[in-house]
Amino acid sequence: MAVKDASVAEKRKCIGIIVYEQFETLDVFGPVQMWGRLPEHNLAIISQDGRPARSAHGIAIEPHFSFENASNLDVLMIPGGMGARREVNNDALLAFLRTRSAEARWTTSVCTGSALLAKAGLLDGRRATSNKLAFDWATTQSPRVQWQRQARWVADSPFMTSSGVSAGTDMALALVEHLYDRAIAERIAKTAEYVWNDDPSSDPFALP
Amino acid sequence: MAVKDASVAEKRKCIGIIVYEQFETLDVFGPVQMWGRLPEHNLAIISQDGRPARSAHGIAIEPHFSFENASNLDVLMIPGGMGARREVNNDALLAFLRTRSAEARWTTSVCTGSALLAKAGLLDGRRATSNKLAFDWATTQSPRVQWQRQARWVADSPFMTSSGVSAGTDMALALVEHLYDRAIAERIAKTAEYVWNDDPSSDPFALP
Repeated sequence: MAVKDASVAEKRKCIGIIVYEQFETLDVFGPVQMWGRLPEHNLAIISQDGRPARSAHGIAIEPHFSFENASNLDVLMIPGGMGARREVNNDALLAFLRTRSAEARWTTSVCTGSALLAKAGLLDGRRATSNKLAFDWATTQSPRVQWQRQARWVADSPFMTSSGVSAGTDMALALVEHLYDRAIAERIAKTAEYVWNDDPSSDPFALP
Repeated sequence: MAVKDASVAEKRKCIGIIVYEQFETLDVFGPVQMWGRLPEHNLAIISQDGRPARSAHGIAIEPHFSFENASNLDVLMIPGGMGARREVNNDALLAFLRTRSAEARWTTSVCTGSALLAKAGLLDGRRATSNKLAFDWATTQSPRVQWQRQARWVADSPFMTSSGVSAGTDMALALVEHLYDRAIAERIAKTAEYVWNDDPSSDPFALP
C-alpha cells in the first residue's frame, strides 16, 4: 500500500518509483502491480517537483513524494520511455539517482531507464541491459557498461536492469524473490493471473 | 494519445476506460499500454465525478472525463479490483454502463469488471468470463450469464470479457486485431517486448 505520510513510510521499507513526463506506462505499472502489496514494503511514486507526471500514453499520475522529501529508499526504480531522451540531460535527476542509489539495497530500471543509470555513471563496469528497440541509443550513454544483448533482465547486485516495457514485470517478480522468497513471488504472479518468465536468460526479443 | 478536450476527441474515435476507488492497477494499465497509441483512437480515463481515483495499490490517476461529459465512446472498458465489490451497488455506474454500452462498438472488461457488466444486466444470455480467484463472487452477479471457467478472454460481440488482471493485456491486443488488423496488434506487442498469449482458450489459470 502506498503512503502519503513519510512518518508512516519509515515504519516499513520503501520502494521508490521515479516518474517524469512521457515515461512508458507499463514500465511503471507492471512493477506497481507486483510490488504494491508486499508484506514489508510500501510503494512510493516520486517526481522531481512532486507534481503529477503524464505517461507517454497521456495518463497523469499523482506522486507521493518529490526529490526533496524522498529518502531512505530500500529499492529505487527508474522507468524508460520517450521522456528518457530528455532526462539524460537532467542533472537534478542524475544527482538524485546517484544519491539515493548509494543508500538503496537495490537500484532497478525498466526499458531505457538503464540509459539514465548509465548516464549517471552507476553502471560502469557492470553488466546491464535495456530496451532492444532503443539499444543503440541506450548504450551510447556509457561505453563502460557491459551491455547484454540477450537478457530479459540482468541482476548485477545492487543493480537490476530489465529489457523493454513488459520485461520489467518479470524483473519485478525476480526482485520479490530476492527481497522475500520464491513462494511470495509465485503467489503474486498467480493472483494477477500472470505467466512469469522467471528465467532472465530467456529473451524472446534478444538482439543478434 | 489521450485528450483533455472533447472537441478534439470527436475527430477521432475514443476508447473510454472507467476508473473507481480501488480498481486493480494492471487491469487498467495493461490495456492502456496496448491501446495508447492506436492510429484512429484516443484514450480517455473516466471517473464518476471526474476526480482522481486511487488504485488498489495506492496510485492516484487523473481522469480526462466524468460520467457527465463522456459520450460517443467507440469502445468502453471497465476494470475489476476490490472496489468492484462496492461498485456493484453503485446505480450511477450501472446506468452509465448501460447507456454507453448501447452506443459502443465494443464493451470490454478485465477481471471482476465483468461482474459489473453482469450486474448491469448487459451479459444476460451471453458467454463471459472473469477473475478465476473471484469467480464464485463474480458469477453471483447474474445467473443468466454463460460463465466460462476456462478462457483467457471471451469475445461475444459486442462484449469482450477477460480473466484476471494480466489476461486483460492479452484481450486488449485481441481487440486491436478486431478494430484494425493482426499486424498492428503484433507490432504493438513487439514494441512492448510483450509475449502475447493470442489464443483465448489457452488459460493457464482455468478452473476445473
